[in-house]
Amino acid sequence: MGSFLEAAARVVPLDQAAADEAEALQDRLTKPRGALGRLEDLGIRLAAIAGQCPPPQPAPVAVAVFAADHGVVASGVTPWPAEVTTQMVANFCAGGAAINVIARQVGADVLVVDVGVSSELEPRPGLLLAKVRPGTANLGVEDAMTVAEANAALDVGASVAADMVAAGARCLVTGDMGIGNTTASAALIAALTGRPVALVTGRGTGIDDGMLARKVSVIEDALARMAAAGVGPDDPIRLLAGVGGLEIAALAGFVVGAAAARVPVVIDGVIAAAGALVASALVESARGYCIAGHRSSEPGASAVLEHLGLDPIFDLAMRLGEGSGACLAIPVVQAAARILAEMATFDSAGVTDKDI
Amino acid sequence: MGSFLEAAARVVPLDQAAADEAEALQDRLTKPRGALGRLEDLGIRLAAIAGQCPPPQPAPVAVAVFAADHGVVASGVTPWPAEVTTQMVANFCAGGAAINVIARQVGADVLVVDVGVSSELEPRPGLLLAKVRPGTANLGVEDAMTVAEANAALDVGASVAADMVAAGARCLVTGDMGIGNTTASAALIAALTGRPVALVTGRGTGIDDGMLARKVSVIEDALARMAAAGVGPDDPIRLLAGVGGLEIAALAGFVVGAAAARVPVVIDGVIAAAGALVASALVESARGYCIAGHRSSEPGASAVLEHLGLDPIFDLAMRLGEGSGACLAIPVVQAAARILAEMATFDSAGVTDKDI
Repeated sequence: MGSFLEAAARVVPLDQAAADEAEALQDRLTKPRGALGRLEDLGIRLAAIAGQCPPPQPAPVAVAVFAADHGVVASGVTPWPAEVTTQMVANFCAGGAAINVIARQVGADVLVVDVGVSSELEPRPGLLLAKVRPGTANLGVEDAMTVAEANAALDVGASVAADMVAAGARCLVTGDMGIGNTTASAALIAALTGRPVALVTGRGTGIDDGMLARKVSVIEDALARMAAAGVGPDDPIRLLAGVGGLEIAALAGFVVGAAAARVPVVIDGVIAAAGALVASALVESARGYCIAGHRSSEPGASAVLEHLGLDPIFDLAMRLGEGSGACLAIPVVQAAARILAEMATFDSAGVTDKDI
Repeated sequence: MGSFLEAAARVVPLDQAAADEAEALQDRLTKPRGALGRLEDLGIRLAAIAGQCPPPQPAPVAVAVFAADHGVVASGVTPWPAEVTTQMVANFCAGGAAINVIARQVGADVLVVDVGVSSELEPRPGLLLAKVRPGTANLGVEDAMTVAEANAALDVGASVAADMVAAGARCLVTGDMGIGNTTASAALIAALTGRPVALVTGRGTGIDDGMLARKVSVIEDALARMAAAGVGPDDPIRLLAGVGGLEIAALAGFVVGAAAARVPVVIDGVIAAAGALVASALVESARGYCIAGHRSSEPGASAVLEHLGLDPIFDLAMRLGEGSGACLAIPVVQAAARILAEMATFDSAGVTDKDI
């Protein structure tokens, strides 16, 4: 359990002095005050994350795609066969998936992490074998994993983040793959935000009304089981073990690992949102290191954004996961930092400020 | 008048066959159908623009920042002195403005075009001297320019686009600089969309209530003068001459030039929107080649997006102009093309499609 707890102990609140300095600098740059809108807010947050102004460039960028299987597929919550998780891991390693294409576009590296794929995977370049167990149990009928397994998956995530930063990364991106993982995410989101299951459960990869009703019912049963066992939002680790996923646990650890290293972590869709929600429940200050890449069309993602007070960079109605939406937002994050580092001031450029 | 009219004659409607091919290809890529949301629509449009599937990569990217002054500043519509236009041109040429920083981030080249700056500018690298006249007359009291001057500015824009494409650019970005230009833009937008002046006029670089009321009143007077002269939305050239700006005319020519070359042109904020609106009024098919980079916080920009049926990539509450918001959207445009060109299909990757 070393990696996660060590990381958690190192997370400090955002640096308000650096944020104030960045805010003052924004007003001296050669543009009308506030004219870069939320790009200015983002630059200020990057300064607060790094504890310096101007903030360092958030590059190189590393994407971690945590992959795992979910026992809940046996309850009929998705039309995709579970073997697709393994097939997509191969696709990631071969560079043919959406996240590979988008990562190439923005100059990010992709590491695929097997934290719980059902099948035994062969070593491959770009694939980290860190399986905690071969898929979760069916959260619809029993706990998805043990608390020890949840902690082990948190450790995997935290140590991947630490290793990426040690290798030079200065911006991390959350990725995920796992057939059935929108079910586990919705369960965690309902439990930790207190919202009704039906309002945070979406169609995932695209399911019909009947399957959606079954998915909601499976999650409601699981949460009733947790409630009967006395497990509520004040016990995020037991919730994670009870209704979570191995990749979601790893994502939570990854977020905390990024925060510990004072590096921004760009959050993707609903799976990553569930991970960030767990991270924030475990280590409150980790939240400030999260940048929401986009607003997924999955309703649970919006519930988390609101709960954590995160304002997403994009809303392109994406719902793929893999880190695709977060990765697409990287150039905006980098531009926000670059504005503070490279723009001329009214004084330096000899531009007349407005007559106030 | 050669460049613009030649370009206008070469604009063809979007290629529906290429769009259909791209749409079918999206459904074979290794992702749930539709899971990339509007990124898929954007890829389909790029195929329609280029007339091929997959579409060519929209790179290299060239930004044209058309700069001009506005006689209407004499009517007290902005707190910024007119000399700032000239100072900002120097800032662009020195690389210190927001557009320079964002262009460096996304790997785009920036060309500043003097199409009507009041002062005499010295030749500098990165600056094209193509002044039609040294600023417009005050649109609040008389026509901003003659029809011949409006046509000359359209020519400048069309020929800049043609030259950029001839030099290798495969994606163009609209930029603008001109103290007073949100007033001219709002006037054109009100006249061409038929919306009330008060609803399409914003605070530009940041003006108080009194100045905003004066700005609305100046525009209303100008449009009353045009109406009295019998000039309406069916005569966009005379409207452009009466209440437009030299950079707005050049932007309209630039959009048509991009369309003639079948290259996507990414539209920035309210000034570019006014230019695209004029372009579309002059050459209806040019509209399809426009990609809205972002939703500016200026109300006139949203009016144009709705009028032209454009769905912006971002909404970051930006209102700087210069091409800053459009340039920030470039990696998304490029990712959309790359998805179609580089993603594996279910067949090629050996991934099982969902059980429908």
